[in-house]
Amino acid sequence: MQTIVTVLIPTQERHRRLLEASAPDFSFHYFSPETVTQEELDHTDILIGNPPQGMLHGSPRLQWLQCNSAGVEPFLQPGVLHFKTLLTNATGAYGLAISEHMLGMLLEIFKKLHLYRDAQHQHQWQSLGQVRSIEGSTVLVLGMGDIGGEFARRVKALGAHVIGVRRTDTRCPDYADEVHLTADLDQLLPLADVVAVSLPGTRETAGLLDRRRIALMKEGAVVLNVGRGSIIDTEALCDALESGHLGGAGLDVTDPEPLPVGHRLWDIPNAVITPHISGFYHLPETLERIVRISAANLKAYTEGLPLKNLVDFSTGYRKLP
Amino acid sequence: MQTIVTVLIPTQERHRRLLEASAPDFSFHYFSPETVTQEELDHTDILIGNPPQGMLHGSPRLQWLQCNSAGVEPFLQPGVLHFKTLLTNATGAYGLAISEHMLGMLLEIFKKLHLYRDAQHQHQWQSLGQVRSIEGSTVLVLGMGDIGGEFARRVKALGAHVIGVRRTDTRCPDYADEVHLTADLDQLLPLADVVAVSLPGTRETAGLLDRRRIALMKEGAVVLNVGRGSIIDTEALCDALESGHLGGAGLDVTDPEPLPVGHRLWDIPNAVITPHISGFYHLPETLERIVRISAANLKAYTEGLPLKNLVDFSTGYRKLP
Repeated sequence: MQTIVTVLIPTQERHRRLLEASAPDFSFHYFSPETVTQEELDHTDILIGNPPQGMLHGSPRLQWLQCNSAGVEPFLQPGVLHFKTLLTNATGAYGLAISEHMLGMLLEIFKKLHLYRDAQHQHQWQSLGQVRSIEGSTVLVLGMGDIGGEFARRVKALGAHVIGVRRTDTRCPDYADEVHLTADLDQLLPLADVVAVSLPGTRETAGLLDRRRIALMKEGAVVLNVGRGSIIDTEALCDALESGHLGGAGLDVTDPEPLPVGHRLWDIPNAVITPHISGFYHLPETLERIVRISAANLKAYTEGLPLKNLVDFSTGYRKLP
Repeated sequence: MQTIVTVLIPTQERHRRLLEASAPDFSFHYFSPETVTQEELDHTDILIGNPPQGMLHGSPRLQWLQCNSAGVEPFLQPGVLHFKTLLTNATGAYGLAISEHMLGMLLEIFKKLHLYRDAQHQHQWQSLGQVRSIEGSTVLVLGMGDIGGEFARRVKALGAHVIGVRRTDTRCPDYADEVHLTADLDQLLPLADVVAVSLPGTRETAGLLDRRRIALMKEGAVVLNVGRGSIIDTEALCDALESGHLGGAGLDVTDPEPLPVGHRLWDIPNAVITPHISGFYHLPETLERIVRISAANLKAYTEGLPLKNLVDFSTGYRKLP
């Protein structure tokens, strides 16, 4: 019986040619997450792209789910995937888009561009005082995967001192100046002018930046979060921004999310909020990368070779080679 | 008679020690541009920092004016400086501050952060569509001095293809991919996703980006200006932004300047305006650099060595060694 590949990412003709050339004997079906049927999901062997979580039901036929996202939390919940189903994420696809977004939010805050935007609406030609520079700043990067690593590379190229934080591995890549363990976080937080969070949402990361740790941060420090809103205690963050203890926050993820109308965070002047859009397909190159990752994994699958970006169900992290 | 040095930059004790150690036999007087008297200016030999233009009167006693700015137009006007007075600018002091500001404005526009800021005030959690990346973009840098060069270095490190434009010299430094002459500007403008202007205000640069050249720019291109407002035809720019021909403009200088309340440019959504604040002393490091440049030049002066950053009165540009 021919292996069925159901593709849920928004492909163009050239993307389809690339995918199909990677597994010439497989049968390709194209849907979107909105149009895919329960029958299709119950009878497919391989899924490329994130299906609605509630439609998987642990199908034993599904051999492999190649997510189009870096985060895969919904598919780690019990009963969603069969225990034999392979799960790969799209690590490598989002580094460019999200790291540039982080850099943009950081410069926006450092250069007060958000406040100058507000002044522009008032037709106000007036200095708002001192600014800060990336060059010479110390940047603490929590989560040195694709996204955190690409952000680290960029701020290091701009002259920052980059301290990476990882769970298990303190080898220092060329795009960081130091790498330490998460266990040492309390000693590192007081050193940083910028704390950049690009961690996945897991049991370990929930509440990592709680009220106590936010208090450990340097006076005037800027926090960035593109990981998951749950990693930071929102109320403690709001308090620290309002008191002036923190100099600013650039948040593409929030808790709760979406941020409800009327939430106090919306109106804090030094909070810069974007509605979880740094990734997804907002940068066209991201889709190109997801297609390339999927095609390479399809080829590996047909050849019986190991898949890239396999996710470890027990940790929610990508398995390292 | 002891040589008098009048210092008009806002020095701290350690800055004064550094300056005075560079010329131990000179007498140092400290003022600000607001507090300095006519009598002081008439009797000083050396000025460090920009005095009010109208108070110089071509004093024959003034041997040397070390400006704290990169632009020196006011001091090139007839009758302001005696023809024997040396004029040096602060090239090297502003590259960091202004190039980071340019990068911030570019990312703000590319990532739609200015529009997300507007949406934040409405408590709107909603995607605003596609964004763009610096990586893979072609950036045309008009003016490859300290500021343009530092900006070129930064966007090149972030993966842009950098085309520099100079008046006379097409040697390609390591921070550009190509360098061409200003004479070839019309052929270069259609290639660029970003046109970054960091030229001084001179007779040659006034109106350089006029309506015809703006029309030559690529559909959706972004223009940045930190040079002088007079370099761009403001009305033509407004028209190109409103028609959608240009994707955005990041302007730290405008024409007229200050931009008057009610000017149409204030309200164009894709115009990002800051009130000529990217330089000055807004980044503390800029003052440190101005003091270091002044101290090094003072030392050279006492030793009879050539001064750095000497300005050529006929062009308004720094003389190249």
